Amino acid sequence: MKSISRRIGVNRRVLLSALAAPAVLSGLRLTAAQAQQLPERSVAPGPLPGGPPLASWNEGPAKQAIHDFVRATTDAASPKLVPPEERIATFDQDGTLWVEHPIYSQLVYCFDRVPTVIKAKPGLANVEPFKTVLSGDRDAIAKLSLRDLEEIAAATLSGMTVDEFDTEVKKWLAAAQDPRWKRPYTDLTYQPMQEVMSYLRANGYKTYFVTGGGQDFVRVYSERVYGIPPEQVVGSVGATTYGYDKDGKPVLTKEPKLLINDDNAGKPESIHMMIGRRPHAAFGNSTGDRQMLEYTGAGGGARLMMLVLHDDAQREYAYGPAQGLPDTKVGTFTQALYDEAKEDGWSIISMKSDWKRVFAFE
Amino acid sequence: MKSISRRIGVNRRVLLSALAAPAVLSGLRLTAAQAQQLPERSVAPGPLPGGPPLASWNEGPAKQAIHDFVRATTDAASPKLVPPEERIATFDQDGTLWVEHPIYSQLVYCFDRVPTVIKAKPGLANVEPFKTVLSGDRDAIAKLSLRDLEEIAAATLSGMTVDEFDTEVKKWLAAAQDPRWKRPYTDLTYQPMQEVMSYLRANGYKTYFVTGGGQDFVRVYSERVYGIPPEQVVGSVGATTYGYDKDGKPVLTKEPKLLINDDNAGKPESIHMMIGRRPHAAFGNSTGDRQMLEYTGAGGGARLMMLVLHDDAQREYAYGPAQGLPDTKVGTFTQALYDEAKEDGWSIISMKSDWKRVFAFE
Repeated sequence: MKSISRRIGVNRRVLLSALAAPAVLSGLRLTAAQAQQLPERSVAPGPLPGGPPLASWNEGPAKQAIHDFVRATTDAASPKLVPPEERIATFDQDGTLWVEHPIYSQLVYCFDRVPTVIKAKPGLANVEPFKTVLSGDRDAIAKLSLRDLEEIAAATLSGMTVDEFDTEVKKWLAAAQDPRWKRPYTDLTYQPMQEVMSYLRANGYKTYFVTGGGQDFVRVYSERVYGIPPEQVVGSVGATTYGYDKDGKPVLTKEPKLLINDDNAGKPESIHMMIGRRPHAAFGNSTGDRQMLEYTGAGGGARLMMLVLHDDAQREYAYGPAQGLPDTKVGTFTQALYDEAKEDGWSIISMKSDWKRVFAFE
Repeated sequence: MKSISRRIGVNRRVLLSALAAPAVLSGLRLTAAQAQQLPERSVAPGPLPGGPPLASWNEGPAKQAIHDFVRATTDAASPKLVPPEERIATFDQDGTLWVEHPIYSQLVYCFDRVPTVIKAKPGLANVEPFKTVLSGDRDAIAKLSLRDLEEIAAATLSGMTVDEFDTEVKKWLAAAQDPRWKRPYTDLTYQPMQEVMSYLRANGYKTYFVTGGGQDFVRVYSERVYGIPPEQVVGSVGATTYGYDKDGKPVLTKEPKLLINDDNAGKPESIHMMIGRRPHAAFGNSTGDRQMLEYTGAGGGARLMMLVLHDDAQREYAYGPAQGLPDTKVGTFTQALYDEAKEDGWSIISMKSDWKRVFAFE
C-alpha cells in the first residue's frame, strides 16, 4: 500500500511537529473571527541604509566569524577570494530566519484552511479528521494522528491552481496572527539574521532559502519579507499538473503528492538540483540542516557554517536538547549536532548572548 | 514491474530519437581515436560588443516580433512595461539553440561512455546491449531496442559523483566532434538565437534553459557556451543521493532514476518548480515545447512565443513534418503545432529565410 506521506505538499518533519504542539490550535480560532480584517503588515528587513552591518549583533565569535568570512571571500587581495558567480549562501527558514515554535506556520495555515475545504466539499464536515478540526475541541485536535495530519495537509494544500493558492496564502498572511506576539507571522523574522542576509547580499552573495517548508508557500512572501525572490526559494515540492480550465486556459493544479522532501539529505540533493553550485555559506538550526552544512563545509576555500541555538526562553523559545535545553520535536538541535559543529568548526549562534534584539519590532 | 524508463537521467523522447537515427554512431568511432587530443574550443556567443542587436537576422516578421516585444516590455513609457524581476525568458536547447540532428548530443555522449563503463565493470563486455555497442557494428547498434538504450543511458549517466560527472563531460566536450561539421558540438549553436539571448539579457531579461536534456549535462557548458549560469538551467533531472566517500567526505552520487522529465507538460511544471514565475518569452522548436509556449502565452500583457522551423537542409537540416517537410522522430514539428502557432499568434522562425547565417563560424 502506498504511504499517504508521499501524497502531500509538506514534509513529514513538519507534520510530526504538529503532534508535539497542541498550542498551535490557538491559531485556528483566529481566522474565523478575524480573516479579511487585518491589514497586511511588513517589517523592513535588514539594517538601515548606510548603517553598520550586523547592528543587532553583540560582539563575539559568531559576529566575528561572519565578518571574517565576508572579508576572506570578497576582498580582492584575499587568497580565498570567491568569484561573484560562486557567491551562494543558503538559509534554512523555520527556526533560522523566523519563529518555528510552538509549530511551523505553514501547519497553522493548513488548520485554518479546513473550513474553506469543507465549504467546497460539505460532505467532509462529518468525516474524520475534518469533523474534529471543525469542532474546535482542542484536546481532541491535539490527539490527531500523523495520518490525520497528512490528510489535512493533502486536502488543504492541493486541488487548486498555483495562482489560487498564491491568493489564498496572501489573504491568510494578512489576517493570521501568532498567538504569543499578536502579530502577523511574517513579523516574526529574526532581525539579526535579516542583517546577515543583507550584509551578504551587499557583498555580492545570492541568498537562497533551502527549507523543509513548502516551496509554493514560502515563495508567496519571501521577496517581500526577506528580499529573496521566488526563483531563490528551494523547499519541499508538491507536484503540479499542467492542464486546461473550462475556458481552455492553461493552468497548473497542485496535486496531493510530495515530489521533493527538502530536509536532511534532501537539502544538499535539492541544492544540487535547484542551484547546481555548492554554497559557500549555510545557516540552519536543527538536525534537518546537518547535511546541508556538511556539504557546504566539504567545498574548498573559505566556508561559513552556522547554527542558531534557541537558548532564550524569555525573548523567544528555549529548546535543544543540546546543552541541556528542553527537548522538542520541532526544530530538534541534538547534542550530537552540537558536537559535530564544534568538531568541524561550525559556528553556534546563541540567541541569548549573540543577539542584541530578536525582532525588528522590539 | 517497475519500468526501466523511470531509472534513467535522460528522458524518453531523447532515447526514442536514437532508434530513428543510426547516423549517430559515427560519433562512437571518434572518441576512441581522438579523445584527449583536441583542444577545447569555444564560440563567442552573441553580437559583437557595440554592434546592432540581431545582426544575423534578415528583416522580416520574426525579427520584428522580437524587437516589438523588447520595446513593449522594457520601454518605461510602454503600457505593457514588465518590471525587471519579472523579465524571464525560457529557451529549449536541442533544435532551438543548437543542432539536434541526426541525434541529441547527450546520447552521443552516452554511447561514447560505454567503453569507460566497461573498463570499470569488465563483466559487462560480454553482456548485451554493451557487447553490441563495443562491437562497433553499426547495423547491429542501429537495431538496439528502446530498453537497450535506456540501459545504456542508465549505466553511463549514473554511478559517479556529480563532480566526477562534470569532469567527464568536460573532457568529452573537448574531444568529441560532430561528424558533419567536424567541430565540437558546442560550436554548433545557432548564432541568431545566441543574439536573441544577448539582446534579451541586455534588456534586463534573465535567460533560462528549459530543456528535455539532462540538467547536469547541460550545466557543464551552459555558462561558457551560452552565458547561462547553472542555476538557470532547467532540464530533465536524474536523482542524486547524498552520502560519504571512503574518507568520510560528503558526496552526491548520480542514481539511475529519472526524477523530472522536462518535456511536454513537464516543461511548465518544471518552470513553476524551478523558477516560480511565468516566462514572458519562450522559444522552442518541437511538440515538446508546446505546453511551455501555451503556458507563457496564457499570462497577461506582452508575451513572445517563437518556434524555430528547420527548413534549411543545405545549411543545417530540414524536418517537420509541418509544411510538407520530411518527418522525423527527433524534434518533431507537426502540422498541428504549426496551426496552433498561427492561431495563437506565435511566431515561426524560418531558418532558411530569417537567418543570414546559422553558425558563428560560417
